[in-house]
Amino acid sequence: MKRCSVLVLAAGQGSRMRSNLPKVMHALAGRPLLWHILRAVRGLEPERLVVVTGFGAEQVEREMSAPDIHWVRQEERLGTGHAVRCALPVLRGCSGDLLILNGDHPLITTDILAGLLASHRENGQAATLLATELDNPHGYGRVVRDAEGGLARVVEEKDASEAERAIREVNTGFYCVSLEHLPGWIARIGNENAQKEYYLPDILPMAVAEGGAAAWCLNDPVALSGVNDRTQLAELERAFRDRRVAEWMARGVSFVDPDSCWVAADVEIGIDTVIEPNVVLGPGSWIGERCRIGPFCHIAESMVAADSVILPFSHLEGAEIESECVIGPHARLRPGARLAPKVKVGNFCEIKKSSIGAGSKVNHLSYVGDAQIGSGVNIGAGTITCNYDGLHKHRTVIGDQVFVGSDVQFVAPVQIGARATIGAGTTVTKDVPPDSLAISRAHQTHVMGWSERRGKHRS
Amino acid sequence: MKRCSVLVLAAGQGSRMRSNLPKVMHALAGRPLLWHILRAVRGLEPERLVVVTGFGAEQVEREMSAPDIHWVRQEERLGTGHAVRCALPVLRGCSGDLLILNGDHPLITTDILAGLLASHRENGQAATLLATELDNPHGYGRVVRDAEGGLARVVEEKDASEAERAIREVNTGFYCVSLEHLPGWIARIGNENAQKEYYLPDILPMAVAEGGAAAWCLNDPVALSGVNDRTQLAELERAFRDRRVAEWMARGVSFVDPDSCWVAADVEIGIDTVIEPNVVLGPGSWIGERCRIGPFCHIAESMVAADSVILPFSHLEGAEIESECVIGPHARLRPGARLAPKVKVGNFCEIKKSSIGAGSKVNHLSYVGDAQIGSGVNIGAGTITCNYDGLHKHRTVIGDQVFVGSDVQFVAPVQIGARATIGAGTTVTKDVPPDSLAISRAHQTHVMGWSERRGKHRS
Amino acid sequence: MKRCSVLVLAAGQGSRMRSNLPKVMHALAGRPLLWHILRAVRGLEPERLVVVTGFGAEQVEREMSAPDIHWVRQEERLGTGHAVRCALPVLRGCSGDLLILNGDHPLITTDILAGLLASHRENGQAATLLATELDNPHGYGRVVRDAEGGLARVVEEKDASEAERAIREVNTGFYCVSLEHLPGWIARIGNENAQKEYYLPDILPMAVAEGGAAAWCLNDPVALSGVNDRTQLAELERAFRDRRVAEWMARGVSFVDPDSCWVAADVEIGIDTVIEPNVVLGPGSWIGERCRIGPFCHIAESMVAADSVILPFSHLEGAEIESECVIGPHARLRPGARLAPKVKVGNFCEIKKSSIGAGSKVNHLSYVGDAQIGSGVNIGAGTITCNYDGLHKHRTVIGDQVFVGSDVQFVAPVQIGARATIGAGTTVTKDVPPDSLAISRAHQTHVMGWSERRGKHRS
Repeated sequence: MKRCSVLVLAAGQGSRMRSNLPKVMHALAGRPLLWHILRAVRGLEPERLVVVTGFGAEQVEREMSAPDIHWVRQEERLGTGHAVRCALPVLRGCSGDLLILNGDHPLITTDILAGLLASHRENGQAATLLATELDNPHGYGRVVRDAEGGLARVVEEKDASEAERAIREVNTGFYCVSLEHLPGWIARIGNENAQKEYYLPDILPMAVAEGGAAAWCLNDPVALSGVNDRTQLAELERAFRDRRVAEWMARGVSFVDPDSCWVAADVEIGIDTVIEPNVVLGPGSWIGERCRIGPFCHIAESMVAADSVILPFSHLEGAEIESECVIGPHARLRPGARLAPKVKVGNFCEIKKSSIGAGSKVNHLSYVGDAQIGSGVNIGAGTITCNYDGLHKHRTVIGDQVFVGSDVQFVAPVQIGARATIGAGTTVTKDVPPDSLAISRAHQTHVMGWSERRGKHRS
Repeated sequence: MKRCSVLVLAAGQGSRMRSNLPKVMHALAGRPLLWHILRAVRGLEPERLVVVTGFGAEQVEREMSAPDIHWVRQEERLGTGHAVRCALPVLRGCSGDLLILNGDHPLITTDILAGLLASHRENGQAATLLATELDNPHGYGRVVRDAEGGLARVVEEKDASEAERAIREVNTGFYCVSLEHLPGWIARIGNENAQKEYYLPDILPMAVAEGGAAAWCLNDPVALSGVNDRTQLAELERAFRDRRVAEWMARGVSFVDPDSCWVAADVEIGIDTVIEPNVVLGPGSWIGERCRIGPFCHIAESMVAADSVILPFSHLEGAEIESECVIGPHARLRPGARLAPKVKVGNFCEIKKSSIGAGSKVNHLSYVGDAQIGSGVNIGAGTITCNYDGLHKHRTVIGDQVFVGSDVQFVAPVQIGARATIGAGTTVTKDVPPDSLAISRAHQTHVMGWSERRGKHRS
Repeated sequence: MKRCSVLVLAAGQGSRMRSNLPKVMHALAGRPLLWHILRAVRGLEPERLVVVTGFGAEQVEREMSAPDIHWVRQEERLGTGHAVRCALPVLRGCSGDLLILNGDHPLITTDILAGLLASHRENGQAATLLATELDNPHGYGRVVRDAEGGLARVVEEKDASEAERAIREVNTGFYCVSLEHLPGWIARIGNENAQKEYYLPDILPMAVAEGGAAAWCLNDPVALSGVNDRTQLAELERAFRDRRVAEWMARGVSFVDPDSCWVAADVEIGIDTVIEPNVVLGPGSWIGERCRIGPFCHIAESMVAADSVILPFSHLEGAEIESECVIGPHARLRPGARLAPKVKVGNFCEIKKSSIGAGSKVNHLSYVGDAQIGSGVNIGAGTITCNYDGLHKHRTVIGDQVFVGSDVQFVAPVQIGARATIGAGTTVTKDVPPDSLAISRAHQTHVMGWSERRGKHRS
């Protein structure tokens, strides 16, 4: 199919959001609204992709920066027709068809856009609008069709007769237009209205008269919904998630209680993995097959390989976990935690910027930061890598098969040779040779009868 | 507007709750049902506020104690009419209008009460009942109106004709009555019925005959619902929360997944704050603007100032957090934790009755109790304030810019001078001078070839 | 009532589950689908209980192993009629009535099965099918009744006339049949159909003709629903939980936010206990009266006695907690944790295979494993039982009234006498006599002016 160009309108403030954030930067499923639109658009591989920004333009352009986007600034916001006019210079040289999309309709998909484009090419008209049927069409422009079912005109609510108000087919504000005709139509839009704005739908009567116009109706109002306030945003977020979770369940992923889970837009999950209740899978979560994610886990920007188990209350961010690991409960894996297969990290343990070798265990109340730990290592309860001296961070390197007793501190930089043993309570300040026992311990002394003396104070 | 008096009926046991708790003391959104009624009532600034207690009267009067409440005991529970009779002596000296309310209708608002009062004054009748329309009116007294739309009578379910049963407008049990007429009506109520009880609605025919009666219908059955069992309580709780969350979203607060959050009745949240999924905001939570509350956080009786971030799994109770702090994940702030701006408290840290100065960090696995920590302090991982000697609690005082290594114990009472450094693993039992390094450490020794010897035992 | 025999069909793979797990082993409310069926069946105390397995037969028979089950293997899966034929030899010697059930209908109850059996015996027919009414009967066999309301026949969707398709009463696939007639009917079922399978419903025309057949209609389609894919499984799970939670609330248990809680099938909860939002009560949870379970708690295979409080983020598995204990927040109790009355276990503490005596406290950041702790003991923050030497686990025994300072390590095996005191930071390697103070501590030394020297490096 011949490629088309795409224009995304993303200049609005969204005053009903009551926010200082540009409307298209509000997040749905962990990603900005505009991110969702762009994902759908890129599925079409457009010839040129133009995005019009206005309110908060710098923030939008910076955070959504990508080489395939031509940014256009709408310095004064004088309506959607004006926004398109601002973009025309950047579209010069493109021929064929242009899709005009709203940046605040995050559930749009590549399939829907391809459907609109295909319908446009098949009907041979100069403009095609995307329509949908609503149970309650109040406030929307109604699609009035002629006797043959073609598009007669679109009537705004305020101008509609009683019969027209009963029409349930409405204009979604998505268009596919011929770039041959568009500049001429845009030039003729006026601003004789209360808001003194240039409205894009005003091109429709021109298109009907010149080149022809059609309406393609898709009966999926949820996918075609826009976001105007935070309640609508939350509703669309819920709808988006329900659709994604249903897809996964059809593919063989179990959600024990789908309503209680929150899942970002770009998560991947392998089959026969079980997601227990109250799980949050944030952006960038990649979960393998046959994993089990326990209740109250929070995972983001992390990889969890096949057959691993994440126990309740675990927090993973920027971590890579190989297969057959067991993490948690109450474990925290921070960016740069890289776990080989069959590693165990237990309760109240924190791992940061550290690699841990196959089969090693960090089971209780430990902090492992800036460390490289071999395979088959046992880290005792309460062990701490003292990686920071107030000025710089230093590394702790621990060889294979090392046994670290409880409550040990590694004052980095320090290296522990393979198969060494570190006694409980030791502060390790010097490198430890392989196969040796390292210990630093004061003698245990007893003061007899202490409880009686203390008891005197008590009573 | 001239003030009215208010009588709240709160004597019932609520046998269908199957509980030993007085019915009005069951919690909705973290506060007793009666608390909600009183909040609505106080918005009217009543001339006199009378509450009738009965079952569990002592508990109700103790826990809801307030100087503006006149408590009346209904020693024998002989019906709502009898309850009002018990209250009449306390109302002596009040003139004008009396609102009679049920203590188990927690979603009532000041606006509704003011509406009932205004309607009563406008209609000039001696009694006005609050009515609502139900889809399923079964079991409720029906409001029968005359040809002019005035109140003819209220018919109980069992006495209603088939035509009357079809009426969907019902009596909610809320009344506004003239105090001039009320004592006379109450004196004439009888108890000739199966339960031998005195029913308040029996005043209505007397009012129709003497002084006149009206019904004011408000089409919000949810707000006018009562609680009879725990399922209804849970349903009203959900309805209450949905209404509050919708209000916040309209004002500019984001709830990523409103259905998954629980919010107490008296929470405040600033605009552009984002509440992530699965958050519990308990009673007394005050959240500033532009904060971010991560998933699985539980906050109660705490203040979180603007631009602070609460990471997942954090538990705040009785804490005060200034602006731009970062708390959690997995942090616990207990009563008396007072954090200056830009403080960081990290994973598996507990702070109790302690102030922490600006920009200080307690990042890993530490217990800070009964301490005063200056600004710019770094508390190493695994640090513990030993505040309890088995008899008393003692304080730890740490000056500005102190650097505390990992796994340090402060045996309180102890003072650390500004800019001091404490070596890893030190047990601090004496005050540390400013600018000094304090350390207590046994020498590290190595026993070579230990792993071979140990290995013999292994095999 | 005379006992019946029961045949459960549990051989299917459930291809729409897209799973390698046998269909009846998928979990609902924490227990396999087949577990639910068997629980309902055992309420009838059947004369003989036969289960037909096929796909994954070994796993099913191993995990559901029980002395009262006669397992039958359906080696080739040639349809439900064939499955019943495989079971006939094992049913030899049983007389009277046989209930034939599907293993993938987990919400069936003993009451429903008893109702079907009673209806069968009352109607005196040779076969009775269990029917229900569906709003959308599409795809189900319709129950066609004769003029007297008796069963005329069951018509499959594809064979139904338009009038028959409008029938909303459908066959659930549950039957009660006379064992006298069954073998003869089964022998005559053919496999002349597209799938070349033997279909059990083909016995119905034979029954109508020989001995008589009836349909007993129960208007509870949810209880009679089967599981075909993971979405249906999640829906039934939600329905099951809603029913159970409603039962508890009627009995006097409060769920603050029932929708946010997940509860396994075999949980017990005492009256006036409050379950706060976002609680997971896994299999084998037993909660006493007047307990409070805080938000974000996860409890499984554990007992919590009356008046205990479990604070948020606590994880209990295989623990026994006596009355008036306070656990959490952020506590983890592992298998073998046994707490006497009035014990406190606080934040970031882990208890494993240990008994703790009445009134003892483990409040902060501690690991207690393989220990026996007396009553009235105070365990300081950061205390660790070093129970593992790399080869074996050893026990720590602590007497009554012992006071353990912060950051103490017990290098097990070790015994601490009653009323002893252990100084902060001590590594305990030898037994401690009763009433004594044990301490191992290096002297605290100060290096003056350290911050200046360090400052040079900093700037």
